[in-house]
Amino acid sequence: MNKEAIYHRPKNNFTYAYDKKTLHIRIQTKKEDVNSISLIYGDPYDWKEEKWSYQTISMVKTGSSDSHDFWFASIKPTYRRLRYGFICMNSEETFVYTERGIYQKIPTDIGCFYCFPYLHENDVFQAPVWVKDTVWYQIFPERFANGDSSTNPKKTLPWGSAAPTPTNFFGGDFQGVIDHLDYLEELGINGIYFTPIFKAHSNHKYDTIDYMEIDPQFGDKETFRELVQKCHIRGIRVMLDAVFNHSGYYFQPFQDVLENQESSPYKDWFHLWNFPVVTDPKPNYDTFSFVSSMPKLNTTHPDVKQYLLDVARYWIEEFDIDGWRLDVANEVDHAFWRDFRNVVKASKPDAYILGEIWHDSMPWLQGDQFDAVMNYPFTNDVVNFFAKQEITGQTFKNNLTNVLHMYPTNVNEVAFNLLDSHDTPRILTLANENKERVKLLYLFQLSFIGTPCIYYGDEIGMTGDQDPGCRECMVWEPEKQDRVLFSFLQQLIHFRKTLPAFGNKGGFRFIDTTDNQNVIAYEKSTDGQKLIFVLHNHHKNAKAIIGELSNNKYKELFTGQTVSFDKEGTIELTPYSYQCFLIE
Amino acid sequence: MNKEAIYHRPKNNFTYAYDKKTLHIRIQTKKEDVNSISLIYGDPYDWKEEKWSYQTISMVKTGSSDSHDFWFASIKPTYRRLRYGFICMNSEETFVYTERGIYQKIPTDIGCFYCFPYLHENDVFQAPVWVKDTVWYQIFPERFANGDSSTNPKKTLPWGSAAPTPTNFFGGDFQGVIDHLDYLEELGINGIYFTPIFKAHSNHKYDTIDYMEIDPQFGDKETFRELVQKCHIRGIRVMLDAVFNHSGYYFQPFQDVLENQESSPYKDWFHLWNFPVVTDPKPNYDTFSFVSSMPKLNTTHPDVKQYLLDVARYWIEEFDIDGWRLDVANEVDHAFWRDFRNVVKASKPDAYILGEIWHDSMPWLQGDQFDAVMNYPFTNDVVNFFAKQEITGQTFKNNLTNVLHMYPTNVNEVAFNLLDSHDTPRILTLANENKERVKLLYLFQLSFIGTPCIYYGDEIGMTGDQDPGCRECMVWEPEKQDRVLFSFLQQLIHFRKTLPAFGNKGGFRFIDTTDNQNVIAYEKSTDGQKLIFVLHNHHKNAKAIIGELSNNKYKELFTGQTVSFDKEGTIELTPYSYQCFLIE
Repeated sequence: MNKEAIYHRPKNNFTYAYDKKTLHIRIQTKKEDVNSISLIYGDPYDWKEEKWSYQTISMVKTGSSDSHDFWFASIKPTYRRLRYGFICMNSEETFVYTERGIYQKIPTDIGCFYCFPYLHENDVFQAPVWVKDTVWYQIFPERFANGDSSTNPKKTLPWGSAAPTPTNFFGGDFQGVIDHLDYLEELGINGIYFTPIFKAHSNHKYDTIDYMEIDPQFGDKETFRELVQKCHIRGIRVMLDAVFNHSGYYFQPFQDVLENQESSPYKDWFHLWNFPVVTDPKPNYDTFSFVSSMPKLNTTHPDVKQYLLDVARYWIEEFDIDGWRLDVANEVDHAFWRDFRNVVKASKPDAYILGEIWHDSMPWLQGDQFDAVMNYPFTNDVVNFFAKQEITGQTFKNNLTNVLHMYPTNVNEVAFNLLDSHDTPRILTLANENKERVKLLYLFQLSFIGTPCIYYGDEIGMTGDQDPGCRECMVWEPEKQDRVLFSFLQQLIHFRKTLPAFGNKGGFRFIDTTDNQNVIAYEKSTDGQKLIFVLHNHHKNAKAIIGELSNNKYKELFTGQTVSFDKEGTIELTPYSYQCFLIE
Repeated sequence: MNKEAIYHRPKNNFTYAYDKKTLHIRIQTKKEDVNSISLIYGDPYDWKEEKWSYQTISMVKTGSSDSHDFWFASIKPTYRRLRYGFICMNSEETFVYTERGIYQKIPTDIGCFYCFPYLHENDVFQAPVWVKDTVWYQIFPERFANGDSSTNPKKTLPWGSAAPTPTNFFGGDFQGVIDHLDYLEELGINGIYFTPIFKAHSNHKYDTIDYMEIDPQFGDKETFRELVQKCHIRGIRVMLDAVFNHSGYYFQPFQDVLENQESSPYKDWFHLWNFPVVTDPKPNYDTFSFVSSMPKLNTTHPDVKQYLLDVARYWIEEFDIDGWRLDVANEVDHAFWRDFRNVVKASKPDAYILGEIWHDSMPWLQGDQFDAVMNYPFTNDVVNFFAKQEITGQTFKNNLTNVLHMYPTNVNEVAFNLLDSHDTPRILTLANENKERVKLLYLFQLSFIGTPCIYYGDEIGMTGDQDPGCRECMVWEPEKQDRVLFSFLQQLIHFRKTLPAFGNKGGFRFIDTTDNQNVIAYEKSTDGQKLIFVLHNHHKNAKAIIGELSNNKYKELFTGQTVSFDKEGTIELTPYSYQCFLIE
């Protein structure tokens, strides 16, 4: 056995509390190297006649990456305490894998075993319950709808009259959103993520001037309050974007530093290297990236911290917003985010905290900081397989299985799964304008674990390249909207809301197929419901054998027809076909 | 190459801030499988003409366990931000190991690389500076010295007149400690860890009745204040033991629960299952282990939390203690310990927080909870090799190298390295009363990374089996004390204080020898000083070849003699010999 490839370490994705009674335990081994693993476990203090009273349970193989198999067991320890180890078996050998190494027999010293000392409810990673059932819709406010021309900024262009540039304006505003809530409700989404709305000069508003004020181009606070209230009446949650890593150039404290230099009371609000502070030719202070107009905030300074925490509380308490999306969240200190979480949850216990992190985010997802991160690893894999067709189905499955096993299940269930955003090309553009592929993408996204987010306009077939191309004005003329795509998404959202196994209550696993190039199959299941999805990501007809389908009758969800399979489970696949088989 | 055995994940022991400017990066590979690894790294935003400006540096192999090699690099990123990956090479192949998997060429997408987004000083694991240079001395107050017979509990036995039992008393007290501070100063220790001193019925005082009161058998608060002050005058720090996981049976809130049951205002202070609360035949509430007289405290309840945090603050602010040792620290919630740290550090920024955890403690050593844990994995290995002679030198080195690589270096530097305690047999007893082995143990402990702790009386050759045997009265009659052992320890402490490489400023690494059964050799070095230690753990004469010694002249520290070696580095070893060669 490849012993060196076995990895387990308590906490993180390997041993974690799923809820206040349940521990999940995972271990990884070299792919196709171990035949079975038994978990050996017991209460650390449960001894009889100097012998530890342990039990064993078989672990389940929950998937494989290109290099490793992942094994899983779920335990509800009576006294919320656990010591455990692993009995690994293949045809060559059997041994016990413990914290102190490998033993041929079960060690008598309990100190050898891994420990999860006590399951405390308040240490459990717990995202708000509503998030699991949310379908997000991302709005870039300058470009969604112009509902009130009186708030238009100078030089506002007629809606959709020009291509977006880094500096032009089309006058999108809150009234525009209010005017189109019927549209959003019709689509079926129940959460809106707004990119920044606070006072700022740019069209994207990531260059905050005042975190306590709404940018006048979007309307006033009363209009925003009305927007939130009207969303809530329709069961739609509202999330705002907090840019706390850095301020904009015109943020008053930074302006004060530039003006008063060493005597500025705000000089410790930033990371200044020396005086005089200059912005040209290069800034002599920490910035976001190397952008001199985005001075990095010193979030470890008590006054800065207090100010930003007041901001966090203000928009919740005064306007009843439901969540914060945190820009460049990974570059702010962990201590700040811990206090941020305490303040936010004290103001609204079921508020959602979403960090923008593009890489492995385990350190922020321990329960003490964020509820979720933007799941770009998911994005990469679905884009590379479905949209760009650059990887095979097998690679897609391996990669995505790896992403799923990087995090605890309760983290995966609220991951913010996006196909694109204001920071990437639009998904239809990434898919080379092939709408069949985009339909597969949406079907996968909407039936996967996590909470999907739709970028405004994607649902009606908008295209657009990397920023600023992806920030075009929303198309409102019905004849220019792809209503077929819209209806398809509507249907997926409906399935997600009405079929327990389709949404986040359903456990996910990939299923073997004979076509590992273009076909993927997966199961979503609850105790009472099982769905098998088969997606064919190719422009030719194909045939595959999916053993799981064999000798059974199913109701196909999209056609409503009953389908039965031969004993091999042979399935004929038309180009870019998708099928979802229901067994109840 | 055994790709499946490679493991790296940012944070924890793999990528961490060593100080406010320095990142340490480690990766593990299968033992003797990879010839070299280069770290490829750069600022995430440093791009020139659409190409990422990266650098490379060779990683150093810092040791091996029985299964893995460990590789290390230290980087000071100019802008405190880093993206990085690993170029792994052996004679078969070369590839790039990244967060997104293995590539044959350096990937152009920076998103593939691992990320340490920003080094914030306040997120750095930072134990108090003085801890690194501390030699601890553990006192079990009932058994160290009886200096004031007026505080003797009932039925106090004459000092040392009987073997210790779970229930007898000998009247040890604070005055006894004050009376022997000369002795402790002579030994050279500069930190005292007291097991509990608060009001409790037992002789060990782990059954707290009142956390705000000193047990009267030890004296009053004024005597304690005097003790702390007199310690401080001599440069000795004082650490107390906090039993916050559970209270004693006679803790007033628990008595109130037993008396008033459901109407007790303290009913949420514990984890009660139902009413009436009973202690017999089995408790119907959470306890430490299954001991009904040790009800587990509900540290998530605001009042309990406030009470215990007040306790933590009170003894620091009123008596100027320097640290808290936390009993059963692993079974209390992380959220409590985070708040505990904030309160303690606000009261005294350089107070030390030491958790009692016997297993892998990484989750508590992230900088937000503890400064150190009791390093029982160290204890196991040194006891098994030196004292019990149950493992070979090679296994000892493998295991200890593994322990060192489980944690960041700044964590290792303040680990609480103990040979024994009030919870284990005494080290001389574990060593089968062989003092030669105990001398090797002390030499290793005092020259190793971390902060050593001596259990009272060990330094003069006391023996004692598992509790209560290990809790005998301190022997004060000079003729019964082993003054040779005492002087040896004195000398080691002196070396530790005066030779930078001997103490915690010295980097540690094992050195190869031809005798992997009974001999271990290791280097401690600073920029200006290098020490090579050779310890021979066997009762016969032996010879070994240690290449590192070849063709060189050294000053041997214990004899003061100059020693030179042949070109192989042959060394003759008498039974249980120890040598420390100084190169300056």
